[in-house]
Amino acid sequence: MAIFTMNMEAKLVSSAQNPLVKSIILLKDKSRERRKTGLFVGEGQREIELALKGGYVLKTLLFCPELMGPTSIEAFTKTTNPEIVQVSESVYGKIAHRGTTEGVMALMQSKNHALKNISFESKTPLVLVAEAPEKPGNIGALLRTADAAAVDAVLIANPKSDLYSPNIIRSSVGCLFTNQIGVGTTDEIIDFLQTNQIKIYCAALTASKNYVECDFKAASALVMGTEATGLTEKWLQNSGQNIIIPMQGEIDSMNVSVSAAILIFEAKRQRGF
Amino acid sequence: MAIFTMNMEAKLVSSAQNPLVKSIILLKDKSRERRKTGLFVGEGQREIELALKGGYVLKTLLFCPELMGPTSIEAFTKTTNPEIVQVSESVYGKIAHRGTTEGVMALMQSKNHALKNISFESKTPLVLVAEAPEKPGNIGALLRTADAAAVDAVLIANPKSDLYSPNIIRSSVGCLFTNQIGVGTTDEIIDFLQTNQIKIYCAALTASKNYVECDFKAASALVMGTEATGLTEKWLQNSGQNIIIPMQGEIDSMNVSVSAAILIFEAKRQRGF
Repeated sequence: MAIFTMNMEAKLVSSAQNPLVKSIILLKDKSRERRKTGLFVGEGQREIELALKGGYVLKTLLFCPELMGPTSIEAFTKTTNPEIVQVSESVYGKIAHRGTTEGVMALMQSKNHALKNISFESKTPLVLVAEAPEKPGNIGALLRTADAAAVDAVLIANPKSDLYSPNIIRSSVGCLFTNQIGVGTTDEIIDFLQTNQIKIYCAALTASKNYVECDFKAASALVMGTEATGLTEKWLQNSGQNIIIPMQGEIDSMNVSVSAAILIFEAKRQRGF
Repeated sequence: MAIFTMNMEAKLVSSAQNPLVKSIILLKDKSRERRKTGLFVGEGQREIELALKGGYVLKTLLFCPELMGPTSIEAFTKTTNPEIVQVSESVYGKIAHRGTTEGVMALMQSKNHALKNISFESKTPLVLVAEAPEKPGNIGALLRTADAAAVDAVLIANPKSDLYSPNIIRSSVGCLFTNQIGVGTTDEIIDFLQTNQIKIYCAALTASKNYVECDFKAASALVMGTEATGLTEKWLQNSGQNIIIPMQGEIDSMNVSVSAAILIFEAKRQRGF
């Protein structure tokens, strides 16, 4: 059972027709709804904790005592002051992505990912750029690698979807909340990188320069296109250096998050980790 | 419409109750059925072509003229002499994974992946080992990277499933057919590597040796465990060197195919590609 302090007031929701329940289902399903409201849904203890640690604001905390086990909701309400809502098991089953995510969910405010909010502590930042990444699984894997390498920012150019889809949050195992992420058009991001004097390295199958021959110790942006069509012309025209990962197989088709990791960790190697 | 030479005899199947149709559905769904019969299902021109190029034997070719466009089935029957079966559009829709895979499917014989069949051209082979990989998407990504790096063999220890599930074939984009793949128990693979004097490098989060400090130019096996639990004790006890990819993030959780790629391409870098 949830441990509950007396100064918390929780309303109880046990009907799937409740407006809050309906709005959560909408927020999980519809990118449009997330953009309109600036809200998204986090699920399970770990996800919510990581989001709070990453500075996200909790608007509503929903919990289902029957599913919570030894978890306490106090951990989530210490620093913020969310609305607290108790839901029945059947309602939780309707709104949860996975049936047994520790009986706790949250409505949170998404961040503003405008490029003007990106700041660098390092004078020689290492930046990962992905143009129009499509699959949530790939975006999640990119964010996991970016977290592990502690890159200075991840920039998404011309995104195909918003970042707060449940599939991206899940496949990033919370790394959506730990990375500094900027979103913009390709033009805006090129401009941002040039203004900040960050050299643009475009991964391109047509390039002749082997990535290991580059010096990534200076401020560098590693720019990845889609698996299907690569980078758009705009990137290649504004590239400081086009680079290739030499391949010697029959098919020579690597996953975009795999290619990105090879480049990022070569930069890390050169920088002495 | 399919271009058809007169010396090919095709029977026509238009009933979903046909035994061949039923057996294809079983082969796609059931690992047990694939193991029992030694057969699997390939789908679409590219998959079948790659399998043929990889030395797989085509037993039955199924085609649906209405869906084939300009594809000719002759490409698939030149080198082998499969049974040829024409199917109706409705039957094709029932047996196809994706509705529009160029109207061509094949029943093929799986290979024997016993370790005794593995041979090396190189005196210093580079081998990728994955213990008990679970997600088809990860296995597919591992095989794509292994193909691109032209590693000498991919060895799967204690597999959780057979290799010929439609999801693995698909996510490997055909690299299942281009890699030399061996399957065995962890004990068998350790024994195989030791017999062949291939140094075992175990990726382990507890290791202290940075992977970039190792010399992968000699015969090397890069051994990856699962994301959840890592490698089993048996591997760590028989390791020539435990290695770690240094991580500096908040979460430090990389996808297994991403970690494998970082190690493989460091070996490639050291070997001058």
